This record gives sequence, C-alpha cells and structure tokens, in this order.
Amino acid sequence: MTESRREYLHFRPIQTRWNDNDLYGHVNNVVYYSYFDTAVNLYLVEEGGLDPHASTVIGISPETHCNFHSAVAYPEHLEAGLRVGHLGKSSVRYEIGIFREGEETAAATGHFVHVFVDRKTHRPVPMPTQIRSALERLQPNTETSTGTR
Amino acid sequence: MTESRREYLHFRPIQTRWNDNDLYGHVNNVVYYSYFDTAVNLYLVEEGGLDPHASTVIGISPETHCNFHSAVAYPEHLEAGLRVGHLGKSSVRYEIGIFREGEETAAATGHFVHVFVDRKTHRPVPMPTQIRSALERLQPNTETSTGTR
Amino acid sequence: MTESRREYLHFRPIQTRWNDNDLYGHVNNVVYYSYFDTAVNLYLVEEGGLDPHASTVIGISPETHCNFHSAVAYPEHLEAGLRVGHLGKSSVRYEIGIFREGEETAAATGHFVHVFVDRKTHRPVPMPTQIRSALERLQPNTETSTGTR
Amino acid sequence: MTESRREYLHFRPIQTRWNDNDLYGHVNNVVYYSYFDTAVNLYLVEEGGLDPHASTVIGISPETHCNFHSAVAYPEHLEAGLRVGHLGKSSVRYEIGIFREGEETAAATGHFVHVFVDRKTHRPVPMPTQIRSALERLQPNTETSTGTR
Repeated sequence: MTESRREYLHFRPIQTRWNDNDLYGHVNNVVYYSYFDTAVNLYLVEEGGLDPHASTVIGISPETHCNFHSAVAYPEHLEAGLRVGHLGKSSVRYEIGIFREGEETAAATGHFVHVFVDRKTHRPVPMPTQIRSALERLQPNTETSTGTR
Repeated sequence: MTESRREYLHFRPIQTRWNDNDLYGHVNNVVYYSYFDTAVNLYLVEEGGLDPHASTVIGISPETHCNFHSAVAYPEHLEAGLRVGHLGKSSVRYEIGIFREGEETAAATGHFVHVFVDRKTHRPVPMPTQIRSALERLQPNTETSTGTR
Repeated sequence: MTESRREYLHFRPIQTRWNDNDLYGHVNNVVYYSYFDTAVNLYLVEEGGLDPHASTVIGISPETHCNFHSAVAYPEHLEAGLRVGHLGKSSVRYEIGIFREGEETAAATGHFVHVFVDRKTHRPVPMPTQIRSALERLQPNTETSTGTR
Repeated sequence: MTESRREYLHFRPIQTRWNDNDLYGHVNNVVYYSYFDTAVNLYLVEEGGLDPHASTVIGISPETHCNFHSAVAYPEHLEAGLRVGHLGKSSVRYEIGIFREGEETAAATGHFVHVFVDRKTHRPVPMPTQIRSALERLQPNTETSTGTR
C-alpha cells in the first residue's frame, strides 16, 4: 500500500485524545483502527446515507490490517485519507492512510473490509445504491492514459 | 465513601489491559469508569436477569463520580467491590471500590447512578422485580440497633 | 453546576468516534471523561506550556465527576466548554460542559480536579507560573458589582 | 491462519467490558486488537521478564492484522490463544486466536508483529535472552517427520 497523500481521494480530520497515547508515549496501535472505523463510517453516513441507528443494511468487518511507519502522539492533529481498493456487489475494501496534518507521507497505512449485511440476519446483501455511488467516487482512476491504443 | 474491603458486599475480578495505562504509566482516570460500568452491568446480567440486547427496561446513568486514592497499572489484577447506597423505585446508587487483588484499602472509590427507563422512550419506569431483589442483596445492613426493639 | 454556554470561557471542538457509542446507541458514560481529559490537557499544552512527555511537573487527578443531562451520539459534533472553579497553589478544579455544536444547553456537565505533582515522586508541588496564568484566564469574573463600594 | 484451539500453545482469559460492544451489539473490531496487545504483553511480562515501565528494550509494532469469523459480545468470557509464527533476531510474529470460553473454533484470528527496540532511540536491537526463550516456547513443533533420519 502506497503512502503518499496524493494516493488518497478523501480526507477527514482526526482528533487525537489524551488516552490514545499508551505507556510508551505514542498513540497505541489499537487506536489507529478506531480512526479507521470513525473515518469510514463517517463517510458512509455523510456521503452514503447510512443511518447506523436504523438502516436495515449495515456494514460489518471481516478483516482489518495496519502497518505502522512512524509514531504519532496526542496532541498532534491527524488526517485519515481514504480510497476504495476493491468494490464488489456486497463488499468493499477501504484503503486508509493516517497522516500528520501537513505531512506528505503516511504515518500508518491499512485496509478495512466491509461486508454489507442485513441488520437482523447478518446475511450479505447488495449494498444500497447511495452507498455504492459514494464508494465509486473513492475509486482511483486506474486508467492511466489510453493514448493511441 | 469508605475505602475498606469489608464495606463492600460483592466482588468482581477486573482484568487490566495494556492500553488502560496512559502516558504517565498508570491506569488512566477514564478507564476506572469502564471498570464501574462493567462490574455493575455484569451484576445486573448475572443476578438481575438483564439482557442488554433485548430487555425492554434498561439502566441509563445520570451521574458518575470517582475519587482516586492511589495509582494502579497494567498488568496488575484488580477487583471491583460493589454495594448499593440508595435504592429507589426506578433508580439505584451503586457504590464501588477498586482494589488491587489482596489489598485491604481501595485504590479508588466512586458511585454510579442508574435510572431504569423504557428502552424506546427513555422514560423512567419501576425497576424489574428480579433486578430489585438482586440490588437489595447489595444493601449493607444499616440497622445497627442492638437495643430491645 | 450550571449548564448554559455562557458560563464557560473556553471551547474546544470534540470529535466523536464510532466506538464511543455503546450498545444502547449513545456515547457511553465513560467516554465523556475522555473528552474532559482531552480538552483539559490540550489547554494545558497549548496555553500552559505543559509537555506531557517531558515536563517535570505533571497534573494527576484525585477526583472526577459527571452529570448526564441528555444523550449524544456519534457522528454528532461536540464542544467542550471549560472554566476554572477553584484555583489553589498546586491544585485546580476545572468545570466542564459538553455541548452539541450550536446548542445552548449542556448535554453533560462535570468537574475534574488536577493536582500538580513532581513527575517522579508524585508529591504535590506549586503549579508552574505559565500554567497558573493560563488557568487564571479561565476563572469567571465573580465580581459583578461595580458600585460605590 | 488456522482456527482451531489445538493450533495455539498458550491461553489467556480475556474479560470483555460493557463498552467493548458497539452500537451493533457486538465487540467492536477495534477492541480485538486491545485483546491481542493485552495477551501478548502479559506473556512478555510474566514469562519474558519485560518491565514496561523500565526495560531498556521494548517491543513496538510495525504490523497488526485481524480476521473476524463470528461475532462475540460482552458479557461473554473469552480466551486468547497464542503461538509464535516467526522468530527473528529482533522481531517476532505472534499468531493469535480469540475463542469463546469452551469453544473449539476461533471467533477471530490475527497476527501482531513486535520489533524489539531501544526505548530511547527506537532502533532495533536483539531481543533479550529471557524474552527469546519465552517466545521459543510458543513455537509450534514444525518437525513432523518421523522417518529414518
């Protein structure tokens, strides 16, 4: 997963908290996943129309991953960069970079998979149209010049 | 609030976690409330028949408080001591002491008020009978009379 | 503790997180203390010159308290209002209100006491001058009379 | 990563907390990493002699990962199973399974890499001997050959 700011299509500010820092003085590895969760769901709520309290289709996570490149610490201001790496019928893979405000290189990079399921049965269902179109906007344009071909 | 182990009527082991410790190397003040919440609700579930996922009556908290007497730290083993300080028709005040395993004096003491409400309307309702009788068992015997009555 | 916005002298935005919400769909009572901790320490860092990683004098908390008036939930935007209720030689009582962005009445109000101690010995020491003057700026002007006295 | 209990060499009880559950009523994906962190560091402390407060060599994490197979929820009792997947000069890959008490199949499986570094410089250093021998005890016996050699 690449680590530069221009690889991400959407950014969210992330506020660090006092107790994000652990005994070693930096944001604990666990907390980055809370940044992932917060940024991804906020995008779904604001752009995709998800209502976490009432929607009949919700996103649950079968897999998350993070690589930590350099330590960050409260009270630093962070940003989460988002893009969509794979978009299936009922699942999506978000790719996320955590950046210090104003820094070009990610302090951490990871991915987070959502499967959209029925809230009651937890069975996979096609993702709602509004969510799908919001996620399509996070897909990098992978066609890099088609020139004379 | 008194701080000795014999002032509490029910004890729960509390497992500390790595990231309970903050930058200063001790369990962060915030986390004690998580111990309170966990011990109190576990009592309601196991002794009072509360089903947090489905019960129509749930406990919500209008007030919590904690005094910190001495620092604790992961990986220490802790215990939460519980007693009931006030038991009303729809509310209860739990008094809680956090002890290091094997220590006589509380490292922290606090209280936590629950008001029992309808899950949907959040309007106060009388607490369920099974919860009430579980909570009565946590009331210290306040009758100290030894006379002829 | 009063609950209107004009009773507080300094405001900090607070970002809610997905997992601030508990099973009941609102920010868990524990998490408000994390908002307190974050807002208070940020003020000490930015206005009082506290360096949590290196300062020889640190603030530890002997007492915290919160009253919950109305529920808030991720993804709402919140603000923490601060004022200083008591300022001693080595201790301070912060009074804090948690507001929904744009709302006049606090969703929660609480206090948080800091005692400034030597980082190594944890013995109380006079608070550093820069911290004291930052905290004095958070004291409400209690002299309202301007008359002939 | 395999998911059966017999693939793990060491088990730790994990206590769930009330606010481990998120809005959807199950332990939030973030929290599993807190179980990982807690179980791994506890092993290092108790078996490897790590003193998180004072050791000059500490473990920091460049990578963590988790796959979620089935949901768990407070107040369930869990266990973390540990084994060592790769043991280098200054790094180790733990493989972890989260099990419901008494269940044979993991609810979640993941890995967690530690690089041992100098506490001050954060430069990799060979892991301390006591830690190495503790970690060797978590390596599955991969030699299954029983032939004539």
